[in-house]
Amino acid sequence: MRKMRKIAVLGAGYVVKPMINYFIDICKYEVIVATRTVSKAEKIIAGRSLGIPVSWTTDQVDALEKIIMEVEIVIVMIPRSCHAAVAELCLKHKTPMITTDFKHPGIACFDKEAKKQGTLILTELGEDPGLDNMGLKQMIDEVHSEGGKITEIISYGAGLPSFEHNRNPWGYKFSWDPNGLMRSAVSPATYQVKGKVIEVPAKFEHHKIVDVHGIGAFETYPSNDSTRYLKEFELDKNISIYKGLLRFIGYSNTMVNLLKIKLIENTEEKDFENTTYCQFIAELIGSPSTEDIKIKFAKSLNMETNDDFIKKLDWLGMFDDVQISLNKGTNSNLLVDLMLKKMAYKPHEKDMIIVHNEMFVEFPDRKEKRVSSMLNEGIPNGDSAMSRAVSLPPAIAAKLILEGKITNTGVCMPSTKEMYEPILEEMETFGFSFKKETIIL
Amino acid sequence: MRKMRKIAVLGAGYVVKPMINYFIDICKYEVIVATRTVSKAEKIIAGRSLGIPVSWTTDQVDALEKIIMEVEIVIVMIPRSCHAAVAELCLKHKTPMITTDFKHPGIACFDKEAKKQGTLILTELGEDPGLDNMGLKQMIDEVHSEGGKITEIISYGAGLPSFEHNRNPWGYKFSWDPNGLMRSAVSPATYQVKGKVIEVPAKFEHHKIVDVHGIGAFETYPSNDSTRYLKEFELDKNISIYKGLLRFIGYSNTMVNLLKIKLIENTEEKDFENTTYCQFIAELIGSPSTEDIKIKFAKSLNMETNDDFIKKLDWLGMFDDVQISLNKGTNSNLLVDLMLKKMAYKPHEKDMIIVHNEMFVEFPDRKEKRVSSMLNEGIPNGDSAMSRAVSLPPAIAAKLILEGKITNTGVCMPSTKEMYEPILEEMETFGFSFKKETIIL
Repeated sequence: MRKMRKIAVLGAGYVVKPMINYFIDICKYEVIVATRTVSKAEKIIAGRSLGIPVSWTTDQVDALEKIIMEVEIVIVMIPRSCHAAVAELCLKHKTPMITTDFKHPGIACFDKEAKKQGTLILTELGEDPGLDNMGLKQMIDEVHSEGGKITEIISYGAGLPSFEHNRNPWGYKFSWDPNGLMRSAVSPATYQVKGKVIEVPAKFEHHKIVDVHGIGAFETYPSNDSTRYLKEFELDKNISIYKGLLRFIGYSNTMVNLLKIKLIENTEEKDFENTTYCQFIAELIGSPSTEDIKIKFAKSLNMETNDDFIKKLDWLGMFDDVQISLNKGTNSNLLVDLMLKKMAYKPHEKDMIIVHNEMFVEFPDRKEKRVSSMLNEGIPNGDSAMSRAVSLPPAIAAKLILEGKITNTGVCMPSTKEMYEPILEEMETFGFSFKKETIIL
Repeated sequence: MRKMRKIAVLGAGYVVKPMINYFIDICKYEVIVATRTVSKAEKIIAGRSLGIPVSWTTDQVDALEKIIMEVEIVIVMIPRSCHAAVAELCLKHKTPMITTDFKHPGIACFDKEAKKQGTLILTELGEDPGLDNMGLKQMIDEVHSEGGKITEIISYGAGLPSFEHNRNPWGYKFSWDPNGLMRSAVSPATYQVKGKVIEVPAKFEHHKIVDVHGIGAFETYPSNDSTRYLKEFELDKNISIYKGLLRFIGYSNTMVNLLKIKLIENTEEKDFENTTYCQFIAELIGSPSTEDIKIKFAKSLNMETNDDFIKKLDWLGMFDDVQISLNKGTNSNLLVDLMLKKMAYKPHEKDMIIVHNEMFVEFPDRKEKRVSSMLNEGIPNGDSAMSRAVSLPPAIAAKLILEGKITNTGVCMPSTKEMYEPILEEMETFGFSFKKETIIL
């Protein structure tokens, strides 16, 4: 009899459940789910004997090492700040590690050591980054094998309410960690136009409206550093490449204003006891009283009182004369707390993920625009599209590693055909397919 | 054998088709469809022998009289300015007339004469006004029969893209005459709070966000004169009554800005030959050149260049250096022309209508909130929800008149149980049902 496979998943947040189900129900692997709040792991495991909930906090290094020694692969679904510590222990025990996060410098630095150990650290296995880049690399490899020359790449990712359930004034709901959203709001972005690098420190101010072929009109703003992929994907350094997020109309200027008025601010912790929301706002704008607070707040932003931004905050309850429901926290914490009260998915409500890649290609005899587009909706009263899009690719990758079908070493992205092809193929069985179209220009 | 029933429908616009189908296919009536562009009538009739397309323009009074003399009922689906002329001829020949428009003074003035003639002019038989008020009156009659006292009425109507197809930056598409939208944009509104009348000359500036029970968050702005219904519906004159339209977020401020910059302006006809859109905009803001036109335009409105309003106009093509596709017209004509290019429904796209009535009621032993809500979506590749909501109630009313089940005379709204009950009941067979809920407060 084959030895029982055993895997560890660190974290039990918003998106982990489909991965655990995949390991237990489809692969019949044992899975340790290690997380601070063990009840979350227990809820996901739901009594299945192959699941092992473990209470673990990121500072418990010895406990982590013990877990790593027990398993064949570690999948890291906790924030980036903990990745290096996990990587060190994984390399020490030659245990492959998978993350859904970017191949950021803090993890890329382990490449040499990982190669030396013959161990794989596989990154960017989520939705964005993840499905987007696997789809993109597949298109690129196809074009190159056909002898085409890529001149421009446009790549959009999105996690949004489904159109059907896009029914609040913010055009947004939370299918993932809202604090992640707050963190990403302040990170800069980079893209390039015909080889010229465009640095975007304030990405929301850089938004534009685009008609996304076959789907609809969205706002997009640049995300992260698009130019990182030029080398990884063997692209000409003089092409245009834009990677951006899609949002419903109005989102970006809302974020611009939230940043401007410092409602997204995550450094200073404040005491909210005996403070109402409107008192908090008065203090934020330096007003001695809460009288006419909406008018004053609007003025401080040089806008009309009936501006959409004011209405959106008002809808959240930001001007209410009601005790703040947190005892303490940053401005971002307060905002997230209010948002989660009105902007979380109800069980029947569907989210959707969009991965939409476009490419302009030159052949000796013609020019083409190639479009590859994926739209997947959450299952009503079941898993969200985002949780499946983020956690199934690393789960599939883990299985492929255990089956000896992925044999790379070092710190990698799933950029080779051997990796992206079986992952994308199996994702299709879960309804995550790219619809492809070629338009001769 | 019963004599063949014969009816006339004046107009063959956006919403007329379901009515014609109802008369021909369900009632087996002969129908004259009289309209300026006879091909529109022919298209709707589609060769069915009971349909009689007639080329007719509103200035052809003799031809109109000839039509009226041929039929038993006239249904008026053309703009308000022609109603009086039709009413005069209908009364002359004692022929009942039905409109979907408000019981405005220009038609209400025929009441005495109609009563004298024993003839009925039935108004407000569309969606809003129409289904909204029939549903409302039904609730009111129920409350009164139960001995309840109504303290507040909130009534929303909407014709919008379905959530599923709400995919453009304006959150709007046209399922009815866009020029009607432009006309209604400049009309004032009235509502009242605890008996105090609130006059609203600039209704879009009066918008607010509301969570509509069971549906979602919308903007609402007051529509028409809500206080007109106090007497008609036998309501206490000191209650609160608000009738408003629902729109997706951002709509009202967009309209505020369109009015401010006079892009909605329907009096002055301009020559657009040899003029591009950006030249038109330059002239609109008094700029000598089209250089940096978006920046200048934004400045003229005291807004940032990346304001959502600028992006929405840009998406329409309003700043394009491209010849205007109309030879001449008003600013509103130009705007509507651009909108129709990008904001019309594709055949598979669904619109939706919402009629949502709420009522606060006091009984000796309790207070209640009663909600009655209708949401109906268009049929993909078939009739829009709006066309069915507007044209089926007058069609049903016409049948009821011919069957002797509606016997009123004078200028009426369908405010009596004898009228609204059979109409609402038959509308249910077409999927237009009110979902009712009572919340004990």
